[in-house]
Amino acid sequence: MDKIAYLVEKVRKGDVSAMARAMSLVENEMPQAREIMDRLYPRTGRAYRVGVTGPPGAGKSTLTSQLTRRFRRQGKTVGIVAVDPTSPFTGGAVLGDRIRMAEFATDPGVFIRSMASRGSMGGLARRTQEVADILDAAGKDVILFETVGVGQTELDIAEAADTTVVVLVPESGDAIQTMKAGLMEIADIFVVNKADREGADRIKMELELMLQLRPDAEGAGWRPPIQLTVASRGEGVDELLGKIEQHGRFLRRNGLIEARRRARLIHKIHELVTERLKEKFWTEERRQKFEKYLQERMEDTVSPYSFIDELMDD
Amino acid sequence: MDKIAYLVEKVRKGDVSAMARAMSLVENEMPQAREIMDRLYPRTGRAYRVGVTGPPGAGKSTLTSQLTRRFRRQGKTVGIVAVDPTSPFTGGAVLGDRIRMAEFATDPGVFIRSMASRGSMGGLARRTQEVADILDAAGKDVILFETVGVGQTELDIAEAADTTVVVLVPESGDAIQTMKAGLMEIADIFVVNKADREGADRIKMELELMLQLRPDAEGAGWRPPIQLTVASRGEGVDELLGKIEQHGRFLRRNGLIEARRRARLIHKIHELVTERLKEKFWTEERRQKFEKYLQERMEDTVSPYSFIDELMDD
Repeated sequence: MDKIAYLVEKVRKGDVSAMARAMSLVENEMPQAREIMDRLYPRTGRAYRVGVTGPPGAGKSTLTSQLTRRFRRQGKTVGIVAVDPTSPFTGGAVLGDRIRMAEFATDPGVFIRSMASRGSMGGLARRTQEVADILDAAGKDVILFETVGVGQTELDIAEAADTTVVVLVPESGDAIQTMKAGLMEIADIFVVNKADREGADRIKMELELMLQLRPDAEGAGWRPPIQLTVASRGEGVDELLGKIEQHGRFLRRNGLIEARRRARLIHKIHELVTERLKEKFWTEERRQKFEKYLQERMEDTVSPYSFIDELMDD
Repeated sequence: MDKIAYLVEKVRKGDVSAMARAMSLVENEMPQAREIMDRLYPRTGRAYRVGVTGPPGAGKSTLTSQLTRRFRRQGKTVGIVAVDPTSPFTGGAVLGDRIRMAEFATDPGVFIRSMASRGSMGGLARRTQEVADILDAAGKDVILFETVGVGQTELDIAEAADTTVVVLVPESGDAIQTMKAGLMEIADIFVVNKADREGADRIKMELELMLQLRPDAEGAGWRPPIQLTVASRGEGVDELLGKIEQHGRFLRRNGLIEARRRARLIHKIHELVTERLKEKFWTEERRQKFEKYLQERMEDTVSPYSFIDELMDD
């Protein structure tokens, strides 16, 4: 058996270090990544994927940990993909993330992967989907994505997840007024966390008002519920879990899980094609031409548009 | 003179309806767009570009209006590119935007373009740069980008702007703790708006603390100042303007304006190449193959990775 086949086999069995190794290969875009993903592919599509997003400081990490504990009590295994828990200032994981890592460190039923999102477009890191697929192929029952999200840019998570939980806090009141497309449209469930603070009821009312105005899109019959929680004390988390499960049943009943997975497949194929086209196009020769164009400041005489025409004609 | 040449000529003269028409053609990716941009290109590169970003509700619109008034008093013409002032719920511009439109409606020295960012990745809409180039070619002295930004995703605006202003409010305290890469790294100037509210000094202190830890990147000698403002009453806005001008001088003195513009050019060429590669690749024939792959649920036997190999081999 070759090395990749061996690695893939171990990933399928849920071997922790094989999973970590496969993820690193994929994240660093190593040549083996394609074959690994290709071979793991038939084993994906079983895990239920939950996205947890919201503005910074809303308590997403705490909530994710609380959900994880409850899934574990149900006997389900959990994979957590935490996007961007690193800070450029400390160079390491933020406190909340380190605490969580410690909590689940000895539980083989929980696998946590932190990914930096820096430089990527959108709220999820570039390779998030592949990392989730690895967790899926390794047999994790639930995958939790956790990512900062605000406003208009976080359509990514809605695409990656079966159920998207948008976490707000009482202080987000102002934000809702200008929240616009983004979070409102992607939310399957709203959480008002830190609900022991002033303003929780007001924000709940505002959300309800906005939801009444929301056009019924894909959901066709699903009205996003609003759950108040105090994640730090575990309050409201059982109810939240109930709502996630309810949404899962709703999706299954209406054939929407399949539709969402299909949308992911389409998106993935488009993305991979684009990547490969770029790889193929930017040959050493074309790179050098581009270098020359820049170094000789040719853009004063040849507009970038004409330069591209030239480059494509080769 | 052909139609496009005529349009381009009128844009160069600052004709308002020609500008709007050119922008619509570009935004809607009409076939004429390329030639328009190509012909306008030699006239770009003169405007100074300022990005105003921050969480929803921070008062970015009010601040942008205040800055615009002051630039106008200096005799400078202003182009405003406001990304995503539309709400899917009301279908129109939000109140603040409508008020602003009214304020400057009779001033030919101000041109406002609102763009929806929906579906685009990153904080700026897909065609923002081109719209700014049109404003630039039309002779606007200053271009103000205004966009919602949070955390990790808003590197776009830093790339589009010469000076990036990150607007926070006293309530953003929690956010700073988890702010991470995004806003901290891109800020050339911080504004704490609504500074008459409680907590303004605290957040200023927190920012100063974080800035001390910030590695000195490109800035090489520029330490982002923090300006307290109450934009609704115009307080602190003159000082903010002073800081923007100071940053502009700093960039010029160190040859960094040129460096930033070059980075934009590189990015633009990469993006345009990718777009054209995709256009060329997705022929009717390949689209049909993809359709077939999906419809016949071939993904159960042929993994997406193998399918792409097949598609690329054609």
